[in-house]
Amino acid sequence: MIALWLIIAAGALSIVYGIVTVRSLMAADAGTPRMQEIATAIQEGAQAYLARQYTTIAIVGAVIFAAVAYFLSLTVAIGFAIGAILSGAAGFIGMNVSVRANVRTAQAASKSLAAGLDIAFKSGAVTGMLVAGLALLGVTVYYAILTASGYRAGDRVVIDALVALGFGASLISIFARLGGGIFTKGADVGGDLVGKVEAGIPEDDPRNPATIADNVGDNVGDCAGMAADLFETYAVTIVATIVLGSIFFAGNVLLDTILVYPLAIGGICIITSIIGTYFVKLGASQSIMGALYRGFIASAVLSLFGLALVTWLLIGFGTELTTSRGTTFTGTDLFLCGTAGLIVTGLIIWVTEYYTGVTYRPVKSVAAASVTGHGTNVIQGLAVSLESTALPAIIIIAGIIVTYSLAGLFGIAIAVTTMLALAGMVVALDAFGPVTDNAGGIAEMADLPSEVRKTTDALDAVGNTTKAVTKGYAIGSAGLGALVLFAAYTEDLNYFISNASPERFSYFQGVTLDFSLSNPYVVVGLLFGGLLPYLFAAMGMTAVGRAAGAVVEEVRRQFREKPGIMQGTDRPDYGRAVDMLTRAAIREMFIPSLLPVLSPIVGYFIIYAVAGKSAAFSAVGAMLLGTIVTGLFVAISMTSGGGAWDNAKKYIEDGHYGGKGSEAHKAAVTGDTVGDPYKDTAGPAINPLIKIANIVALLLLAILAH
Amino acid sequence: MIALWLIIAAGALSIVYGIVTVRSLMAADAGTPRMQEIATAIQEGAQAYLARQYTTIAIVGAVIFAAVAYFLSLTVAIGFAIGAILSGAAGFIGMNVSVRANVRTAQAASKSLAAGLDIAFKSGAVTGMLVAGLALLGVTVYYAILTASGYRAGDRVVIDALVALGFGASLISIFARLGGGIFTKGADVGGDLVGKVEAGIPEDDPRNPATIADNVGDNVGDCAGMAADLFETYAVTIVATIVLGSIFFAGNVLLDTILVYPLAIGGICIITSIIGTYFVKLGASQSIMGALYRGFIASAVLSLFGLALVTWLLIGFGTELTTSRGTTFTGTDLFLCGTAGLIVTGLIIWVTEYYTGVTYRPVKSVAAASVTGHGTNVIQGLAVSLESTALPAIIIIAGIIVTYSLAGLFGIAIAVTTMLALAGMVVALDAFGPVTDNAGGIAEMADLPSEVRKTTDALDAVGNTTKAVTKGYAIGSAGLGALVLFAAYTEDLNYFISNASPERFSYFQGVTLDFSLSNPYVVVGLLFGGLLPYLFAAMGMTAVGRAAGAVVEEVRRQFREKPGIMQGTDRPDYGRAVDMLTRAAIREMFIPSLLPVLSPIVGYFIIYAVAGKSAAFSAVGAMLLGTIVTGLFVAISMTSGGGAWDNAKKYIEDGHYGGKGSEAHKAAVTGDTVGDPYKDTAGPAINPLIKIANIVALLLLAILAH
Repeated sequence: MIALWLIIAAGALSIVYGIVTVRSLMAADAGTPRMQEIATAIQEGAQAYLARQYTTIAIVGAVIFAAVAYFLSLTVAIGFAIGAILSGAAGFIGMNVSVRANVRTAQAASKSLAAGLDIAFKSGAVTGMLVAGLALLGVTVYYAILTASGYRAGDRVVIDALVALGFGASLISIFARLGGGIFTKGADVGGDLVGKVEAGIPEDDPRNPATIADNVGDNVGDCAGMAADLFETYAVTIVATIVLGSIFFAGNVLLDTILVYPLAIGGICIITSIIGTYFVKLGASQSIMGALYRGFIASAVLSLFGLALVTWLLIGFGTELTTSRGTTFTGTDLFLCGTAGLIVTGLIIWVTEYYTGVTYRPVKSVAAASVTGHGTNVIQGLAVSLESTALPAIIIIAGIIVTYSLAGLFGIAIAVTTMLALAGMVVALDAFGPVTDNAGGIAEMADLPSEVRKTTDALDAVGNTTKAVTKGYAIGSAGLGALVLFAAYTEDLNYFISNASPERFSYFQGVTLDFSLSNPYVVVGLLFGGLLPYLFAAMGMTAVGRAAGAVVEEVRRQFREKPGIMQGTDRPDYGRAVDMLTRAAIREMFIPSLLPVLSPIVGYFIIYAVAGKSAAFSAVGAMLLGTIVTGLFVAISMTSGGGAWDNAKKYIEDGHYGGKGSEAHKAAVTGDTVGDPYKDTAGPAINPLIKIANIVALLLLAILAH
Repeated sequence: MIALWLIIAAGALSIVYGIVTVRSLMAADAGTPRMQEIATAIQEGAQAYLARQYTTIAIVGAVIFAAVAYFLSLTVAIGFAIGAILSGAAGFIGMNVSVRANVRTAQAASKSLAAGLDIAFKSGAVTGMLVAGLALLGVTVYYAILTASGYRAGDRVVIDALVALGFGASLISIFARLGGGIFTKGADVGGDLVGKVEAGIPEDDPRNPATIADNVGDNVGDCAGMAADLFETYAVTIVATIVLGSIFFAGNVLLDTILVYPLAIGGICIITSIIGTYFVKLGASQSIMGALYRGFIASAVLSLFGLALVTWLLIGFGTELTTSRGTTFTGTDLFLCGTAGLIVTGLIIWVTEYYTGVTYRPVKSVAAASVTGHGTNVIQGLAVSLESTALPAIIIIAGIIVTYSLAGLFGIAIAVTTMLALAGMVVALDAFGPVTDNAGGIAEMADLPSEVRKTTDALDAVGNTTKAVTKGYAIGSAGLGALVLFAAYTEDLNYFISNASPERFSYFQGVTLDFSLSNPYVVVGLLFGGLLPYLFAAMGMTAVGRAAGAVVEEVRRQFREKPGIMQGTDRPDYGRAVDMLTRAAIREMFIPSLLPVLSPIVGYFIIYAVAGKSAAFSAVGAMLLGTIVTGLFVAISMTSGGGAWDNAKKYIEDGHYGGKGSEAHKAAVTGDTVGDPYKDTAGPAINPLIKIANIVALLLLAILAH
């Protein structure tokens, strides 16, 4: 299996890239002592947060590890641990690079825009490559070890271990997304309310005790949170594709090849992503977005060739494959499915930019509605947020139809795998955001000349767009990835039922699966699944409100007890605000995170008690799909709507409708505040919610089968 | 068929009730000449609007009538016309009563609260009874005529004619809901923006040229719009139940009885609703809400006995029925299903009141969040709006499980029929709202003593709650009614496919139905259906924004050109504002209304072209369910969230958090403005959207079968 070794080499390359790049980053000038002092405060806060978050997750993880080991096997439990630990590592390392790159970006920005961009982007690229690389390595190495130690390629133990690996990643993901989201927006909203509105001091003013927490939040939310999210989507999509492959090609001579194919796509795309990073260079036009897109497009085009190469070498364009379901397709069909995945990626990014970019109708309409007040700004923002779901849904629908016609369910899986193979590059674009955001904050707090702030602002504005665009990609890919997981659930269930006997899978004897929409338990499942994203988002929004309220109280207390802070003669206690938010975020993330973990299990046993096994399996399946359907719409509307509000404010600040300080600007600030928990807490946390419900259902099947 | 005659008599009773009540209403004192002058302006505006709306609908209706007559038959087309005309008549008469009762309520309120309540409630009751009575009469009389003229009870022509009748009601409903909603909220939002915010004059100030339009809007939106909506739900639910019955009991000796049973439930509940209206009397506690609830509870309890009577007389408690699908149940089971429908109604009303009433946590939390500003008010309101979907969804889920276990799909249909049989009483509670709202406006404009305004304000506050509660009922019943329609679609389709031969239903030959969730075309359908409520709501919200913007421009123009208006020396041109809004609302309602009409047809033919008939039928079916699932959540979140914002403002105005004029109040006004199009335009218009998509799909089947 030379292919496996090559894939592992590609994964290892991402680590080499990370080490080399971190070295060159650390060699850059870290600025004045004042800048370093601020950066150190951010570093300490971020580390303290992550340490506490990971400790909490570790406790939950240990319980789950024991449960999985007991109900399934130690081999499977180890898979769970690998997924969790590697996902945590990617976020942890990425964030640690990010909180060191911020100050260096600020310093470099004092020299030139190109230098600032270079450091910020490279820092993001480290996180991106580690996400893709570690996820690929985790799946590939454990797969290689298991198959080398005597298990057949499609053995249930191998499949279960990989599903558990995905679950490990999911667990980190939901905690990191939600906890990070609550932290960052609690700090942002609370800090703004008490600083900008009450005390009348600008954003990032060092006198605001919440300002360090705000900068910490950017890192734990947009960097560590997004990294965990895409690590998970990447891992579970590849795993789900392998599960589908193992069922569709059970007994087929090409089984081994088919299972390695998605891993190979991941491997080649890490290489093309790394090459793509070197295309990010500021051109003569000084367009930052242009530079980033150049890198992305280079990766995408190279990946197309890489995909062709991998398909040709592993399968051959003309080779005919027939699944156990009777679907027949060729290597060319699979290549076209992968291409469709790349096209879907491009289209979703383009549509998200349309809905969140300052140059298009939606953002301009929100800005225009700000003139007539807070209410109309919010109404128009909500209208945009609702509308922004339509085109992505249609793109996803078209993607499903095209790839299914080409190569059935496996074709959809390959398309999503290819879509996610670009995750390294996409995360690089996103993780660039918090670095530039922090760099602006540091420039402000360290009293750097205003030109530096102007440079970091230019970088930050692009960071806002890339953050929004990445969220569109994350939710689109999460939705499609979850559909593959859902297909894995139905196929797995069919497999268990049709192979049930008193000796093996005896639990599934006599189960008849009725996934038909005319089965009321399917309708019940769809409705129950549909409510999960709503309830979860409500909890997320409320949590941010509470966390922000706590920040307001804390800052007011500091202003009251230390009047010298506002005169600049006394230093605020940044650490207290960070510490308080850390506790609030960890506390608030707990119950919502359990929602998708427990729902499939509780739902199964309730319906089982009422109407028996067959109805329960149908209802749980429908529940998964219900969660995907409403989750997709809720998440897209929240992330795009939030992005539109954010940039409508930016558009007004650029001098339209009266500019900064005008009544329109105040209304736009309200919209931006509303959009904050929308786009950075509730919306993105729905991605792991969707996937975790699906992967828990898969694990439930494995446990029931055991 | 003495039963049919009795049902027709019950329907006729509602008309008698209407005539008697209108006479006693008209005999009441219509107040001072100034009050009558204002009331006349509102009457003229409302009539002008409805005339223009109905003209537009008539043109669309004529085209559809011709198409239905051509594709199906004149008999079926006449069904369509009956549904449309009766629905229009209920709204038209109800609104004409409402715009005459408003001034009489204001006058009566100057004597006592009890007198004001009496007139306002009776006016609402006329609309309510007409809605239920005319809908029941339409279905029953046409059914009686068709069966008397030689068609068998379950003949396709009878079924098609009844489905077309439902479609006629649907068409009025979507236009009335959306057009009325855009009108009323355009006037409300626009009037507030330019009056309260810009000119600094209070609500309902006669100097505001938009103030008459605002009062007109209450009538065309909450009275005519809601009437059309529930007329439709009532009609289509009974029709869908008959369709299901005709398929399940084809060839059964009890077929005739089964088809009359839902009509009989409707008939008996009209009588219990009329009796219930006489229980609405202000008690010693002076609790208005208590008086209204007494009437509702009386109707519900009496209906329980009525349901038992009807079941006993028509079917017999012990009689066993077996459907063609093999489900067996007794008369007692059907009675229990009806009881479950009544319980679901009670629970949904209770949950909606929890989320929108000033005495509970949700509204208080929105009010508390107003203290920290506009942004936090909106965030908390959105959190409440998202959260408010969970309990209703769980109630609906429980209702489905219970009634399905009792008597299969037909049990669900009987539960929803019973739920809707109370529509007369529920609409009475809702149509009470615009009358009291108008009465307050008239009291303000006619400079009545402040105690009168206090009395009308007390009535109005209750009106806000009943409006919110009715919307919860409307969407809950619409969702369940749509599920019955969806069941009718799948059963109809199964019927056509299994009876297809070269002579009959030849179009369906060779079609294999795969409604399984593992069919990607089902997933595609769910996603496509899921996006309809989002896109539709976005269009509705944007339309209100545009209409409000037009009102702002018009009012500004009048203030500019007639400076005397603000000094009180010149009269504003109220008619211009009404006229302009009328045109805006009619224009804006058009394209969104076509969305649910065209989507099933276009969706069918696109998937047909790509993947053939079987895939297309599956995708359209899934589309219907997708629309129901996301539509339910979007509509509940919008109507409950909007109600919570509205009452959070009221709660602050009652003296909490600084009361009127405080910063918290300003934030709450923003929330209320955001909630306006949420709860009165986009949210409620989703009800007809859901049902129209389903009924168009049923008609499409009929046309393809023809």
